[in-house]
Amino acid sequence: MKYFDWTATSLISDQALDSYINFSKKFYANPSSLHYLGKEAKIELEKIREKFSILLKCSTDNVFFTSGGTESNNIIIQHLFSYPSESEIITTSVEHSSILEFSKSLSNHNIHLKKIDCEKGMINLEKLKLLLSDKTKMVCLMKVNNVTGNILNIEEAITLIRAYEKDKNRKIHIHSDAVQALGKISFYPSAIDLDSSSFSAHKFYGPKGVGILYNRNKNIIALNKAGGQESGLRGGTENVPGIYASFTALNDALNNLDENYEYVYSLNSFFRAFLLNNNLPVLSLDLPKSSPYIINFSIPNIPSEVTLRLLSDAGFCVSSGSACNSNSRGKVEQTLKGFGIPDNLIKGSIRVSFGILNKLNDVKDLCDSIYKIVK
Amino acid sequence: MKYFDWTATSLISDQALDSYINFSKKFYANPSSLHYLGKEAKIELEKIREKFSILLKCSTDNVFFTSGGTESNNIIIQHLFSYPSESEIITTSVEHSSILEFSKSLSNHNIHLKKIDCEKGMINLEKLKLLLSDKTKMVCLMKVNNVTGNILNIEEAITLIRAYEKDKNRKIHIHSDAVQALGKISFYPSAIDLDSSSFSAHKFYGPKGVGILYNRNKNIIALNKAGGQESGLRGGTENVPGIYASFTALNDALNNLDENYEYVYSLNSFFRAFLLNNNLPVLSLDLPKSSPYIINFSIPNIPSEVTLRLLSDAGFCVSSGSACNSNSRGKVEQTLKGFGIPDNLIKGSIRVSFGILNKLNDVKDLCDSIYKIVK
Repeated sequence: MKYFDWTATSLISDQALDSYINFSKKFYANPSSLHYLGKEAKIELEKIREKFSILLKCSTDNVFFTSGGTESNNIIIQHLFSYPSESEIITTSVEHSSILEFSKSLSNHNIHLKKIDCEKGMINLEKLKLLLSDKTKMVCLMKVNNVTGNILNIEEAITLIRAYEKDKNRKIHIHSDAVQALGKISFYPSAIDLDSSSFSAHKFYGPKGVGILYNRNKNIIALNKAGGQESGLRGGTENVPGIYASFTALNDALNNLDENYEYVYSLNSFFRAFLLNNNLPVLSLDLPKSSPYIINFSIPNIPSEVTLRLLSDAGFCVSSGSACNSNSRGKVEQTLKGFGIPDNLIKGSIRVSFGILNKLNDVKDLCDSIYKIVK
Repeated sequence: MKYFDWTATSLISDQALDSYINFSKKFYANPSSLHYLGKEAKIELEKIREKFSILLKCSTDNVFFTSGGTESNNIIIQHLFSYPSESEIITTSVEHSSILEFSKSLSNHNIHLKKIDCEKGMINLEKLKLLLSDKTKMVCLMKVNNVTGNILNIEEAITLIRAYEKDKNRKIHIHSDAVQALGKISFYPSAIDLDSSSFSAHKFYGPKGVGILYNRNKNIIALNKAGGQESGLRGGTENVPGIYASFTALNDALNNLDENYEYVYSLNSFFRAFLLNNNLPVLSLDLPKSSPYIINFSIPNIPSEVTLRLLSDAGFCVSSGSACNSNSRGKVEQTLKGFGIPDNLIKGSIRVSFGILNKLNDVKDLCDSIYKIVK
């Protein structure tokens, strides 16, 4: 297994795929249909929702199914378009593009997106404090950064915002894109006073095209209620087989969370030792402040795209950027800059991400290939 | 097969499910990743896009993949939020809720949704003419109505709008929700001068959670470009296995379009003869002005929900509404009212929808059950 790009997407597990196949044939009716097959599908859907809520340790009515992490983020942010009024949304400069790319259309509606830098690999709380204002309607803070794996200090940020809220006696919606957290590190959105949080099934060995949204804020409304599914928050026929397959995948991930974490931690540690021995700078925070599933390092003087191509030719899949179509390299550079990484290291940055299917020998082979490139 | 609710959703075909399984394991990488596995997935994705464009008889760059019919409609209509300005969108009073439910959030932005009645089962072209104005930015006209199966006269409407456009020398975007048309009746959006059109895979024996959007208007922009996938029109990791399974399903549907149409036409005709013999009024237009896949009829004096329940108890799946979660019965009543159906017939309306898996004997059994209810 020479695939080291699990942050971009994972291979669906056999168990999840089996769930998909079984449900596809068994519960195929539309859960909104009122006949017995529709009711059966609806009952199954609600059972899965309850099971998800147990995994997420939240109320069942706070779990919503979407088509992915991007759509989950969209639902929350698009709420700001529902009632036009001048306002501000605060986010970090290291968010995924599904958050940052809203900036332009928001500003067309007098909603200003303000960014906090994370120079030391963490959210600068002093800057967050300065940005909070009477116009702040929403704050979006990602949990695990997709480029570096840094586990952001969102709990401290939430405490600060909640104190501000109390002081000013007005609500601020706090959202977290936790696509790289769920199923990898311990993460329970309701336990840390988040209003909403986004997850994506294909990041934890589930199917592509399924997202989960935790949302406890009943005031969030969709631009389009459409068919009224998902309590009006996400219209469209529910992808019941995909949702069930996602549950299977998340259940497996959480049942084995500690074991998988330790295993991947050992792979990451081995890789870090190799980097250290070869004077290759690590751009991620130290473990365990960074997720063991992701590491970003730099080969100074060799552009990322060259390393990526050479490794790809040798059969290895790593990343020079986040897996986005347009100007992905530019986005990665922005993120690393947001983390205070100097330009000379950014140019040669490479993201390696580990999965439970990688063996230590695979990592050793990867190290050998990198060694050859460096020499 | 006592399932007569194919309009709500279909059972995924074995071929489509096989495609899903094969692609899930084979092309699992993220198509935006730059290593060889990512590139392979990207190549496959673009091959499928090209194959879709051949099926739809349009340019490859006019084919976009989404998560369903609702999202395809959302993308087009949400464009109106991109630049705030007073404007109007014209649609029919019989559209799916994924179009009509936009009304409120649009009006919050000074965009007014105006509805044309379809009293005689068709778009009233005189009324359309009267509604067109300098403020008209978009017109949405569904092709096959999901409640009655009526095939709307959108070609005539398009000709009228294009003439108005030419006269006033300003562009109007014309969109069609063709979710109930593709794979069932001959439908090629580019051939009838549409700017965009929406499709949903689970309506033609494909997987749930996959939509297709035909769009030739390069000016349509997304509220959120997100990761930039689908030329910036729909961000989020592409569901390659689902997209491929959808192609398999559509390819099968179009390869057998005429044969399936004739077969289902015969089932529909048999059912219509039964209704006629028993003085049960048909609310759909006559064949072939209505899609043979859908028929709506009324049992006067018996409320829809009673008939639905009795049929469901006898093992039959029919519909008393469109398969939407909230107030679906209300929406159906609105649609039938829009078609000029009198209230006394609306109260007892039932939708039966046929699929290629239904046998004539199934239809005979359904007739027997309805006969018992009526007596």
